[in-house]
Formats: sequence, C-alpha cells, structure tokens
Amino acid sequence: MKVYLDNAATSKMAEEVLEAMKPYLEQKYGNANSLHALGREAREAIEKARETIAKKLNAYPHAIIFTSGATEANNFAIKGVVLANKEKGKHIITQKTEHPCVLESCKWLEKLGYEVTYLNVNSYGQISLEELESAIRKDTILVSIMHANNETGTLQPIYEIAEICKEKGIYFHTDASQTFTKEKIDFSKLGNCLITLNSHKIHGPKGVGALVVHENVKIEPLLHGGGQEFGLRSGTENTAGIVGFAKAVEIAKEEHVDYILKLRKKFEQRVMEEISKVKLNGHPEQRVCHICNFSFEGIEGDALVMRLDMHGIACSTGSACSTHKKEPSHVLKAMGLSDELANASIRFSFSKYNKEEEIDYVIKILREEVDKIRKMFNVV
Amino acid sequence: MKVYLDNAATSKMAEEVLEAMKPYLEQKYGNANSLHALGREAREAIEKARETIAKKLNAYPHAIIFTSGATEANNFAIKGVVLANKEKGKHIITQKTEHPCVLESCKWLEKLGYEVTYLNVNSYGQISLEELESAIRKDTILVSIMHANNETGTLQPIYEIAEICKEKGIYFHTDASQTFTKEKIDFSKLGNCLITLNSHKIHGPKGVGALVVHENVKIEPLLHGGGQEFGLRSGTENTAGIVGFAKAVEIAKEEHVDYILKLRKKFEQRVMEEISKVKLNGHPEQRVCHICNFSFEGIEGDALVMRLDMHGIACSTGSACSTHKKEPSHVLKAMGLSDELANASIRFSFSKYNKEEEIDYVIKILREEVDKIRKMFNVV
Repeated sequence: MKVYLDNAATSKMAEEVLEAMKPYLEQKYGNANSLHALGREAREAIEKARETIAKKLNAYPHAIIFTSGATEANNFAIKGVVLANKEKGKHIITQKTEHPCVLESCKWLEKLGYEVTYLNVNSYGQISLEELESAIRKDTILVSIMHANNETGTLQPIYEIAEICKEKGIYFHTDASQTFTKEKIDFSKLGNCLITLNSHKIHGPKGVGALVVHENVKIEPLLHGGGQEFGLRSGTENTAGIVGFAKAVEIAKEEHVDYILKLRKKFEQRVMEEISKVKLNGHPEQRVCHICNFSFEGIEGDALVMRLDMHGIACSTGSACSTHKKEPSHVLKAMGLSDELANASIRFSFSKYNKEEEIDYVIKILREEVDKIRKMFNVV
Repeated sequence: MKVYLDNAATSKMAEEVLEAMKPYLEQKYGNANSLHALGREAREAIEKARETIAKKLNAYPHAIIFTSGATEANNFAIKGVVLANKEKGKHIITQKTEHPCVLESCKWLEKLGYEVTYLNVNSYGQISLEELESAIRKDTILVSIMHANNETGTLQPIYEIAEICKEKGIYFHTDASQTFTKEKIDFSKLGNCLITLNSHKIHGPKGVGALVVHENVKIEPLLHGGGQEFGLRSGTENTAGIVGFAKAVEIAKEEHVDYILKLRKKFEQRVMEEISKVKLNGHPEQRVCHICNFSFEGIEGDALVMRLDMHGIACSTGSACSTHKKEPSHVLKAMGLSDELANASIRFSFSKYNKEEEIDYVIKILREEVDKIRKMFNVV
C-alpha cells in the first residue's frame, strides 16, 4: 500500500488542474504581453485566474500579484515593504517559528541595518498579543506572522493581529501557504495587509504562487523588468501555472476540510492511544485541518521516516525545506522542546485524497517500527 | 492560415517536452527535498536535468541554478553579484540596449548608491570593445552584456568581452535568453561568468529558467529561505518545469538553427525586395538565427501588428515585455533611429515549426497591409 502523508510539503496535482492547464501547455502558448490573438488569449486566462483567486479571499483582482511560489512571495513581501518604506522606520516584527524564507529575509535586512524582533511562542507555538503590542515601536514598519505553522499546523490569531496593526498604522503580512482554501481568509478584514499564497500545497502546480497586496501598501518589486503584474513583478507570466493554480482554488471545497479534519483526528487519537511515550506537538484545537506532528520518545525522526518509506508511507521530519540543515527544528525548539524530543518528531499531513483504510495501515506499521527502533536502542 | 512569427516573445512547447513533464505533473509529484521515495525521485529528475543543461554549455552541473525564468536570473545575477562584492567596488558596466530586467536592476542599484555605465551601441546595436575597456575602473565589479538582443537579434562578441573581463579580474554576466541552443555558448571559455538561460523561448515550459554561475563567482541569493539550489535559490523546485526545460535543451539540434536561418534569410530578402521604404534593423550577419526587425516608413508598428493579426499572423513591435510602455523602443533609439522609424518597426521571429509556404502568405499579406496603411495616410 502506498500512503502519502506529506501534503504539507507538496500535494498531488488534481486531475482537473492538469486538464485546465493543458490548453496553455499545448496550443494556447502566447506571451500574455503580446498584442496578437494568442497573446490576448493568455492575458484573458490570467485575468480570469486572478478574479477566481481574489474572490476566494474576498479581495479585488488587482491585489493578486502572481509569483513563482510562496518563497518568492515571502521574500517580496518582507524586503519589498521594508525597502519601500525607509522613511517610516527600520523595525520589523516576526516570530521565531516562521518559515526559513521569512526568517532569512529578515536576517538579510538585519545585515542592511534594519532591526528585527523575533517574538517568542508558547508551548503550542502561539505568540502573545500583549507581547506583540509591547514590541511595536514608533519605527515599526511591518509585522509578519504566518497563519498556520508548516511543521505543527498551529494557527495564529491573524484577525486580532491585524486589528493591532490597523490601530498602530503598521502593515501586516501573513504567510498563508498552509491555510489557503483550508481556513477562512478574509482579505477585507485584515487591514493594510499582504498575504502569501501557494499553489502546489493545494493540488495545484509547482512554480506558482501569489502575494496578495492591499492597494494601500507601499511596496517595491523584488523582480524588476518589463513591468508585468501592475509593475510589481516582472517576468513572462507562467500562464499554464497560473490557470492551474486558479483551478485548484476553484475546486477546493469546505467539505474537503471537514473530511481531512475527521481523518486527521481519527489518526491522532489512535496514535495517542496505541503508541506509548508520544507527544502531540502544536495546539490541540487551533490547528489547520491537515497537519499533525508527534514526538516519539527515543526515536530519531529521520530513521523513522526512512523506515515508514520502506513500507510505502511518505511523511517527513518537520519541513521539507529544512532537509538541507541537520539541526533540531527551530519551530519545536521555540515551543520549548528539548533537542532530543525535537529530533524525535514526525509530521503527518493529510489531503482529500487520503482514505480511511490508509489510517489502519499506517497505525499498524508505525506501531511496529516504533517498537523495533525502541527495542534496538533499548528505549522502553 | 495561422502563422506564428513571435518566437522571440515565447514559443510553442514541444510535444516531447510535455510528454517528459507529464509524469511529474501526475504521479511523481514529490517535493525534491523530501526524504521519502517520491521526494528522491523528484530529486533525481532535477539532478539529471541539471546535467543535461550543463553538458550543453560545457559547464559542470553545480553551476546551474534553476530559477523561475530569465527575469529572475538577470535580477539575481546583477543584484546578487553586486551586493555580495561590496568590498570590491560599486561600479557596473552594461549597455543601453539591454532587456528592461537588466536595466531596471541596474537602476535599482543606482538608488542604493552604485554607479552604472551604460555603453553606447553603433547603428547595428553592437558595443565597442575599446569603449568597454576604457569604461572599466578600479572599482568595477561586473560587466553585463547580453548575447543577442531580443528586439533585433544582434550578437555581441561575448568571448572577446569575457577576455577583457578575465584580464581585469571582473565578473562577466551575459543574458543568453535569445541564444541558448541557437548559438554556441561555451561556459569554460567565459571566465568567471554568469549566464542567464530561458526555457519558454526554446519550446520549453514557461516559469522556469536558470542562472549559470561559475564557482569562482561570489554571489548572494535573491530568494532567501530553505537553502535549495546549493543555498543560492530557495523555494520548492518546480520539478516538471525543470524536467521540461532540460528536455527542450536535449531536443534542440544544430539542424534546426540551419533551417531557421534559411527561412529567415529568405523572408528577409523578399521583404527587402518586394516592399519599398523598408529598413532592416540590426546587424546584417552577426545576428541570432531567428530574429529580424524592420522599420516600414510611415507605418505605425502597433497598427501593422494588429492588421497582420487579423490575417492570423502573430508578430510584435519590439519586445513583448515592453507592451506596458508606449515609448519608442530604447533599443532602436540607442542604434540611432528616429522616434518615427523606431515606432515603425516590427519584429518577426522564427522557429523550427515554421514552414516555407508560410513565408509566401506572410509576404503577400504584409505587402497588402503596408500598402493600405500607406495609402490611408498618404505615405507613398
């Protein structure tokens, strides 16, 4: 049996998405900036995609700036806002558990002389709104707090954060890579905001994403050039990718969220009941539907991932993006876990394509493999 | 009859390319950074693609850094090298006829206090090597000169430029978006170089490209994050796009270049013989195989493009990327054309998919339409 439980890393592209993309991979190949019919056809498809995505967020189409993915969108949001608002100040607020692309963008700005506050999180991985408020300075330009963490799924109270930012006249950025189409995101309630979106985590193609930018936000491009995307993101548009992204958004339904949540809860309950010395990482309730993260005492996460893989089960230790670094997860560390427990963690992430019978299989293999490893290393 | 003569803007994706991509758009959807089988499968495909592209350039695989396209690669090259070499100096040399993404990246650096020399070009659009040499200063970090111009096809002597850069210990960047697989590019002879590559102009997918970076080049990332692409370009890899790009490179053959050149020369000759008051823009011989650019006296380029479009013929005024600006082409202006002649220009660009009989049709329509417009405005 093959079971894919790594949907937070990337997801299987939906058949409907590939069908929607095909015409733009085949006969409708025009450059959306060309004046001729093939060009206009590509332009229309892109503008229709922009509308679809805007509608899902309760935003206006010209807020949607297509990018090559969430990493570009996060780099664009943070660097673009900060560099465009030098006269406003030099201070940014984020949190310790952000995705590396947010943290590394902030570190890059620190090298240029900007100052960054990295908020702490509690044991569930949530920031304190009081700490956020007291971290705000007169020269704070931007607050960047992700909607749901990619390793644990823990949600942050983005509407409350947005209220604080509105009050103080600060831009608010949220990386919604793990929540778009899964949690309600209402652009109109987030003030002068920026939202990072991702396609390949919602059964769309890789290589495309978007930054949603409120029209009041002053931002400069990360990619300069021909002036595409309202002058904010240059480069020939990836028409097929954009069309596929919009189709993935269009076919995402609330009932999928209910289904995924039911599966995950069932899985979670069985893991907690049937395997000893296991800790659920992240908030028990305030969590995006598809992610759960456990620490199995005495187990090396990587080893368990490889053993599950031998049984056809795909899952991961923390984020796929961190496989280049062999350090304990910065997310779990910030939540107070020891190096040992952080290294003993595994993330399982679900999608609408998972089946209930897969859970029985994964639980069986997981029990066996955890037992085997623990016996091997005399951890009982 | 439908005739596509806008291949310098973008090209039809080859069927073989889509076939090669399909497995990665369907069942092989893993994140190349994941440890499990699906992840490793994606990783292998990407590394194989890297080898294919490196081989074509006589480069080593780890020189190839995949990006979302040429615009990103050009931004990355210029900003990345300049910002990483502050101790070396603050001066950049480029030319007036570069693509907007090079020029705008330079302008962005000027705002940060860097100095840029924009070399003049002669009436064919070529720089003078003597002028280049005398523009080099002690604090020059980078020379960026494109291989072939996107509007006229004029080639620059990149090997001679590279020699000058080697001698002076300066990094050399060339945007090879219009020449890759069409002109011989030998990475090993270009010194400490950076080369921008494009996929969608060579019958590959949109949304992917590469920057080739010599291992001696000190460069910092444009996209920070998870550390993919040897730490130089973060973001989940677009596996299908990368595989498609490599397939496009693999199937590109020298015989296609010969074929395209033959078609273009035939077309060019007939235009010059059969239409009056027409000027060929660009170098008569030192030009990439697929591009030709004419000024038709007394004609508004946009109007002619639209009229040809009504007959199913796709071509463009200058570059597709410039349709956002309604100014005369900066390329043709730099070559000494008047505003009038620059606005009277049209670019026709060929591919291996064009047929000889298409030329008869285009010449017929072109003659008729040029005649009609000239009569309408009493230009004879």
